[in-house]
Amino acid sequence: MGTVVSLKKKTDRESGIDRIVGLVSEDMQRVNELILSKTGSEVTLIPEVAAHLIESGGKRLRPMLTLAAAGMFGYRGEGHIRLAASVEFMHTATLLHDDVVDESDMRRGKASARMVWGNEASVLVGDFLLGQAFKMMVEVGSLPALEVLADAAAVIAEGEVMQLVTTQNTATTEDEYLAVIRAKTAALFAAAGEVGAIVADRDAEERAALRSYGANLGNAFQLVDDALDYSGVQATLGKKVGDDFRDGKITLPVLLAYRRGNEEERTFWRRSLNDRAVEEGDLERAIELMASHRALEDTIGRARHYGAMARDALEIFPGSEYRQALTEVIDFCVSREF
Amino acid sequence: MGTVVSLKKKTDRESGIDRIVGLVSEDMQRVNELILSKTGSEVTLIPEVAAHLIESGGKRLRPMLTLAAAGMFGYRGEGHIRLAASVEFMHTATLLHDDVVDESDMRRGKASARMVWGNEASVLVGDFLLGQAFKMMVEVGSLPALEVLADAAAVIAEGEVMQLVTTQNTATTEDEYLAVIRAKTAALFAAAGEVGAIVADRDAEERAALRSYGANLGNAFQLVDDALDYSGVQATLGKKVGDDFRDGKITLPVLLAYRRGNEEERTFWRRSLNDRAVEEGDLERAIELMASHRALEDTIGRARHYGAMARDALEIFPGSEYRQALTEVIDFCVSREF
Repeated sequence: MGTVVSLKKKTDRESGIDRIVGLVSEDMQRVNELILSKTGSEVTLIPEVAAHLIESGGKRLRPMLTLAAAGMFGYRGEGHIRLAASVEFMHTATLLHDDVVDESDMRRGKASARMVWGNEASVLVGDFLLGQAFKMMVEVGSLPALEVLADAAAVIAEGEVMQLVTTQNTATTEDEYLAVIRAKTAALFAAAGEVGAIVADRDAEERAALRSYGANLGNAFQLVDDALDYSGVQATLGKKVGDDFRDGKITLPVLLAYRRGNEEERTFWRRSLNDRAVEEGDLERAIELMASHRALEDTIGRARHYGAMARDALEIFPGSEYRQALTEVIDFCVSREF
Repeated sequence: MGTVVSLKKKTDRESGIDRIVGLVSEDMQRVNELILSKTGSEVTLIPEVAAHLIESGGKRLRPMLTLAAAGMFGYRGEGHIRLAASVEFMHTATLLHDDVVDESDMRRGKASARMVWGNEASVLVGDFLLGQAFKMMVEVGSLPALEVLADAAAVIAEGEVMQLVTTQNTATTEDEYLAVIRAKTAALFAAAGEVGAIVADRDAEERAALRSYGANLGNAFQLVDDALDYSGVQATLGKKVGDDFRDGKITLPVLLAYRRGNEEERTFWRRSLNDRAVEEGDLERAIELMASHRALEDTIGRARHYGAMARDALEIFPGSEYRQALTEVIDFCVSREF
């Protein structure tokens, strides 16, 4: 029985990503070419570092949202290609800077850029990609799209700083945690969706719908990501289990286990996360406590809630293969690798 | 006789900065208020880090260029205030990231932000300020100004990466070094001048003149900065003498001393800069070698050359107090604290 469920999930997931990938494949080809051409520089360190990350097999979920949104409206222009590439560059720049901030040694199953080329190169190539992103969006010439993406850039950075402050504080509330992920993750998903509507010249209601779809999808995506960090399946993704734990990062699985725990358990969480006095066997203990309090299941439950909101945000649009594809992305995000 | 020259220089310099400061003081007041309001965030770490740098007594040379350029054209709108604040934020973001890259422990006579709040906060607050800069320039709504500033953002980052690559390589040519400072420093001075003309709706020739003025002024400024790093007067500025030397940074004074030196001297430079095997007394030796080869004087000589080009770029404009003030900024930059 367990096997049947697992197989069914796998099928759902694959069809989910397959449909959107198929629909935007020609456009995505052009986005990829643009991305490669915009990392070009006589300073060879730049294409080297950029390629390391860009060719490391990210799913390019965010630019796909822009392309699919524009596609759903039958957009026939060129602007969505540049906007999608800008969105991906903003994301890549964030990853480069995140790895420096978190002192990560791996990213997508490979050594992180900062381990290969140093923190300096990661900071500066990130800045370069941000600069290129802004250049590309300016080229599109849409002030409303610029407004949305510039706003996202500021909000994302604000969210990252917020996360820095909540790190090592197990007393963080779920609301505070949500404010962090809304800023650091959901803001870019929201912008990615909204600019797809903007470039296709859609009205305020349609823009807001895609913005809401993206924001809720982003929340769901991040919640699942945070649960995966404590799940064994992680190892197969090339990420180490427990990275967040070792970084003292306060995510929803931790918050739930902490709140639901007894005083002895809270002392454990405070020692290992607030004081970073991690001992042999602590990660295993953390995973056990999460299991006993159903912290991972309930984190996924919260993700489903945002997934449902994302789905309803799309309801104002007439049925179409594009809308179906965007809906399946939600299922894909919520049921990743569990 | 020496005293007389020195006094005269001091007078030039003071009047130089005084005139532009006086002309733009009302506008600058508004820029400062805007800057303060845009570092506001519920995440209190952001205003803390930003204020540390922003209130640390930088001269705000770059935003002054934008304001004075717009003023010279009798511009009466509001856009120059936001553009000037954007330029200063771009500069501040670069400083925050530079300190992380160079591992600097001091900046403008105070502990650097990364020493007080850590590398993480410096990287992320830098990103936040960049995001706010983009938001402000988008609000002005001028696509040509956006193009110029977005382009500068990418070029600056490219220059910083270039510098990373030339660092620790004494075989860098003067041309390669110039390419670095043109990108990392002069590009923002050039953009600061040009957007002053753009916001005032001036023609291509006038835009190009202010761009050229800014670029050459920026080159001169950086050359003098690089010479000052080996000059005793530095200590009075709260910067340590020899920071560049300790960082293995290849600047024009080093390049000249290296090229003009004999084989034994070149071995010294390679050991201390390329291999970073700095020993007690090496900085003193470096300063002696620069003196014997006139490396600092000739670096200043090169700066004067760019200063002259900056001055000539302004010649197409009719005489005015604004033009005079912009010209005096050149003298100020070239004759700083020697």
